[in-house]
Amino acid sequence: MRAILTVFTLGSAFLSLSAAETRPLSLMPMPASVQMKTGQLVIDPSFSVGINGSSDALLQRAVEIFLDNLRRQTAIPKLDMKIVQAAEAKLLIHCERPSKTVQELAEDESYSLDITPAGATLEAVTTLGIMRGLQTFLQMVQTTSDGFAVPAIAIQDKPRFPWRGLMIDVSRHFIPLDVLKRNLDGMAAVKLNVFHWHLSDNQGFRVESKKFPKLQELGSDGLYYTQDEVRELIAYAHDRGIRVVPEFDMPGHSTAWFVGYPELASAPGPYQIERKWGVFDPAMDPTQERTYKFLDALIGEMAKLFPDQFFHIGGDEVNGKQWDANPKIQAFMRAHGMKNNQDLQAYFNTQVQAIVSKHGKTMVGWDEILRPDLPKDIVVQSWRGQDSLAAAAKLGYRGLLSFGYYVDLNWPASRHYAVDPISAAANLSPEEEQRILGGEACMWSEYVSPENIDSRLWPRTAAIAERLWSQQDLTDVHSMYRRLPDVSRWLDWLGLTHNSNYEPMLRRIAGANDISALRTLTDVVEPVKDYTREEIAAIEATSLTPLNRVIDAARPESETARHFTDLLNALIAGQADSNAKQEIAMWLSRWRDNDSNLQPLKNQSFLLQEIVPLSHDLSALAVTGLQALDYINRGEPAPDSWTAEQLALLQEAEKPNAQLLLMVAPAVRELVEASSGQKAPPPAQK
Amino acid sequence: MRAILTVFTLGSAFLSLSAAETRPLSLMPMPASVQMKTGQLVIDPSFSVGINGSSDALLQRAVEIFLDNLRRQTAIPKLDMKIVQAAEAKLLIHCERPSKTVQELAEDESYSLDITPAGATLEAVTTLGIMRGLQTFLQMVQTTSDGFAVPAIAIQDKPRFPWRGLMIDVSRHFIPLDVLKRNLDGMAAVKLNVFHWHLSDNQGFRVESKKFPKLQELGSDGLYYTQDEVRELIAYAHDRGIRVVPEFDMPGHSTAWFVGYPELASAPGPYQIERKWGVFDPAMDPTQERTYKFLDALIGEMAKLFPDQFFHIGGDEVNGKQWDANPKIQAFMRAHGMKNNQDLQAYFNTQVQAIVSKHGKTMVGWDEILRPDLPKDIVVQSWRGQDSLAAAAKLGYRGLLSFGYYVDLNWPASRHYAVDPISAAANLSPEEEQRILGGEACMWSEYVSPENIDSRLWPRTAAIAERLWSQQDLTDVHSMYRRLPDVSRWLDWLGLTHNSNYEPMLRRIAGANDISALRTLTDVVEPVKDYTREEIAAIEATSLTPLNRVIDAARPESETARHFTDLLNALIAGQADSNAKQEIAMWLSRWRDNDSNLQPLKNQSFLLQEIVPLSHDLSALAVTGLQALDYINRGEPAPDSWTAEQLALLQEAEKPNAQLLLMVAPAVRELVEASSGQKAPPPAQK
Repeated sequence: MRAILTVFTLGSAFLSLSAAETRPLSLMPMPASVQMKTGQLVIDPSFSVGINGSSDALLQRAVEIFLDNLRRQTAIPKLDMKIVQAAEAKLLIHCERPSKTVQELAEDESYSLDITPAGATLEAVTTLGIMRGLQTFLQMVQTTSDGFAVPAIAIQDKPRFPWRGLMIDVSRHFIPLDVLKRNLDGMAAVKLNVFHWHLSDNQGFRVESKKFPKLQELGSDGLYYTQDEVRELIAYAHDRGIRVVPEFDMPGHSTAWFVGYPELASAPGPYQIERKWGVFDPAMDPTQERTYKFLDALIGEMAKLFPDQFFHIGGDEVNGKQWDANPKIQAFMRAHGMKNNQDLQAYFNTQVQAIVSKHGKTMVGWDEILRPDLPKDIVVQSWRGQDSLAAAAKLGYRGLLSFGYYVDLNWPASRHYAVDPISAAANLSPEEEQRILGGEACMWSEYVSPENIDSRLWPRTAAIAERLWSQQDLTDVHSMYRRLPDVSRWLDWLGLTHNSNYEPMLRRIAGANDISALRTLTDVVEPVKDYTREEIAAIEATSLTPLNRVIDAARPESETARHFTDLLNALIAGQADSNAKQEIAMWLSRWRDNDSNLQPLKNQSFLLQEIVPLSHDLSALAVTGLQALDYINRGEPAPDSWTAEQLALLQEAEKPNAQLLLMVAPAVRELVEASSGQKAPPPAQK
Repeated sequence: MRAILTVFTLGSAFLSLSAAETRPLSLMPMPASVQMKTGQLVIDPSFSVGINGSSDALLQRAVEIFLDNLRRQTAIPKLDMKIVQAAEAKLLIHCERPSKTVQELAEDESYSLDITPAGATLEAVTTLGIMRGLQTFLQMVQTTSDGFAVPAIAIQDKPRFPWRGLMIDVSRHFIPLDVLKRNLDGMAAVKLNVFHWHLSDNQGFRVESKKFPKLQELGSDGLYYTQDEVRELIAYAHDRGIRVVPEFDMPGHSTAWFVGYPELASAPGPYQIERKWGVFDPAMDPTQERTYKFLDALIGEMAKLFPDQFFHIGGDEVNGKQWDANPKIQAFMRAHGMKNNQDLQAYFNTQVQAIVSKHGKTMVGWDEILRPDLPKDIVVQSWRGQDSLAAAAKLGYRGLLSFGYYVDLNWPASRHYAVDPISAAANLSPEEEQRILGGEACMWSEYVSPENIDSRLWPRTAAIAERLWSQQDLTDVHSMYRRLPDVSRWLDWLGLTHNSNYEPMLRRIAGANDISALRTLTDVVEPVKDYTREEIAAIEATSLTPLNRVIDAARPESETARHFTDLLNALIAGQADSNAKQEIAMWLSRWRDNDSNLQPLKNQSFLLQEIVPLSHDLSALAVTGLQALDYINRGEPAPDSWTAEQLALLQEAEKPNAQLLLMVAPAVRELVEASSGQKAPPPAQK
């Protein structure tokens, strides 16, 4: 099975690491073209990099960052692995020309990487291409019998889309600079190139304004980035080939602005920073001149602070209630022949677009901003879907897809992976397709803190990154899932905490050092999907709610459950060997016994009380699974009464409990069905 | 067993966390006096701190740092848990007076902490005492059935010694500022109060000098702290109640100085930064005036940069070869009636002491500096032992113990714990005892990198911290080992990587994601002790050697081996219950099977090849153990021939392999001896 998947991934590309070994490559995103060769290039302390062709400070720093990453992966000391004369280098870098001082959309990111046992050459048109190629190089470094090494290979690569982003909402939960930096490292590792910084919302205005200091002083609880910190982050991103697009959400999602400046709102204040989640009434007053005067000054200030060409004004989810209730606004709408609030928002957007444009920037906004009277250079970011995006493209607008890439919804990587920015059904002309710039993974931060945000982003975001970089027809989920754990391992080296935060969080929950039983349970659950967490919450969560429950520690996607489901599917298909059968029984036995193993902890932690039923369900369904296995092994169909009883039990176990889903329940259901003869299992394979 | 240990620790002090639970306290260092009360104080988002009495910026920051730590432990958001008016506070802090602007030796660090279910009061004479008490409070926060809570308790506490230090050598391996900072957090957590910064040695001069810039420019490979960074670290330490004592080692251990300033040396240059470990010939020329002129200027500059009263001049391990070979120096010695190099170094020390004193500082140096002609205000740091320290005290000198606290030697915590700065045999008068200021854990950095230094320091250094803070008669190793894993857990919250670095390092070694077999093996090995690593090295290690081997990932002390040894000791003493017996068999079976589980990895990693014999030995000794167990269970003495064979096998398995020790071998040896009837086991207990 594994062999087949690998072949799928890279044609017949196996690494011949030495006479004795072949290991599959784990590149993500997969390059456009890969040709395996024979042998490998050893990476030892004498490894060196030379630069010929264009070389500027950015390229030098890119190489230093590369060497630091390589040192982390190998533990080769800082004193080793130097930048040397081109003639002596093991890795020779040739760059035609520097990339732009301010990174631009659609700069050339292509590169070619040629590795032989004697040395490697990385060529690119721009510094950005070199950066991308260096990441590919890092992903190929393996521990082999002859030392650390990269395989002999020839790679030609370039991205499918020029805009490959990650949005992080720092308003609902403030995310400190160091956490953003390590996630920028993660982005660079998977060749994402736009950090979309959602800087303001009802729950906080997170950037220092020198012109309007009450924005951060009264609208942020003291949790904001100084302008120096903003510059520091932009420089950090620039060194990694990442643009930084700021978003200031308006005219809705702006309660935090009104705490300091209530005169901007459509209803009199005073306002408080919002603590709850959802869509709220406060919105800017689009009918008064002082709103635009304020925005002109603020956007002017922020346009200087953020060098990127694009400036995101949000524009989503205005419920219009303040507008409806304000007679002055209603009079304005009548006087200007506006039929509804959409007309009024379009008017607002037109004014704001002119301001953004006056300050030299191109406006970006969510779906709602799209009205054919806006100039064609704006960019629409779609949370609504490919159809909305295709419609925009047909109208001549450029667009980005975020529908399907909301990583806060706890979808499996496979589901994100299946979403393509370009829908085949849309029948776009090549010119229209060009207008689909790419997409952005979005991390809305109702339920993430600095502690767990990494584990909600990674490694799943890497699958989205591949969707945006690699060829459209690369859609094999098995290959993606085979490579994802390797991505996760590289991200560890960058200091991301998506793996390392797990055990400390479980220890906090358990109030104990021995968390094995809690871990066994947590390993097979996932948070409920979409917006179910709020829908079924016993107590409404706010920004004051500690994120310390099992749901906050649980991974969005259970590797154990996926693996177990694969094993059971193989069993039901009659393709499980004796090892696989043993492993199935081992897992089921472990889960059967787990509830009693968890028993000693249950009474000592308030954070465990809610998972008592879940733990019971896991053990119960494991018993069911073992019985079903027994029927199958005996070749005897399970009695109908037993089956009915077990299916009823499974139905209960499949319901959310503590806002968590028991992810092994569906597989056990299939097993029960198979054992009952409802779906007759093929003859067992020995 | 557990109950007995707990009682030992705290008298009859159990936590009554709720009706249903009692859990032992895990304080380290253990306070001077602890009185348990009934009930607990819940820590929830409404928890608040009030300050009355003296309050300055340092105290405010201390409380902010405390709240940040408390938030990390509980995941309560930044928006919660405020500093409030004293009358409304859950924790009321009363501080009599601010501590000194520049922290001084022997400032009052005492505190009293009184906790009831309604609230807590922390009182101290100085801000330092408040800081210590806040750490005690953090150590008591537990996850309970009623929420996070601290027990109702009354604590009176003060340190036994005023100087409780950790030395880190940043010369042999450069340790970046962020790594030092997290380790300062670790120090503060266990109430250590002196960071001794070993800033220069043969392998690097690590601090920026503006007067002599070639020191760092040519003597550091670019790896040094700027003066701004030094100030940043000192401020960071100050906020945590930690003094920073700089060490500039002279006249030996100074090759790195001579790269830029060869004229200081006792032999002509040029000099290179030393890459090897050991004691080397280069030493300053103590006979020339320009050496002292240079030192006067440099010490003057550094005395301003480092505000602490104490200034460490090293003074250790001068081999004298350059002096012997230099006719000018020999002539000088003759002219001044010096009989040997010790006389010459004493002359040097006298000159340097005058310079240090002129710049307002008190000199500290290693044992070698001690000569009765030096003024009595100097401090001697002893790597030689308690006798040397006691002798100094009798001569009127103050001293610090570091012998027995070298954490780079990979001793078990128990061995450090058993070393007391005051030897009972020394018979010191109370006045002489007063001169023993305390001690310092020392981390020489030949074999530590930023990646693994935390795991070589922690949690063992906490045991030394307890020795230096707590009462002399607190010597129960079982209690210390029961509490140590909890210390380790708190340190996780501070961002220390002593736990989190383990799996990534093993994955690098394995070159694979599944490291279970490698981990099983690595969990039961320890690096060889003392200086054996260099003595038995096949290839001499230098500062260019990657620290990526199993020995670099292995913990200095194997928890698994200690636990297994305890189980076997109980078994041999006839005190093992059936669970314990089952667990012994489980471990032995796992180890027996481990060698074949490791098999698939062995051929794919150059870093695993050296542990092939070790892995084989573990499985072989597990088979031996299982057989011995079988003899014991059958109540039948093992045949002499079998015993002889197994003891020979064990003798092999106890030898270092890949510079590692199989720590479960001695316990299996005892089991074999017990099974043979050589030591008849008592009748088994059911």
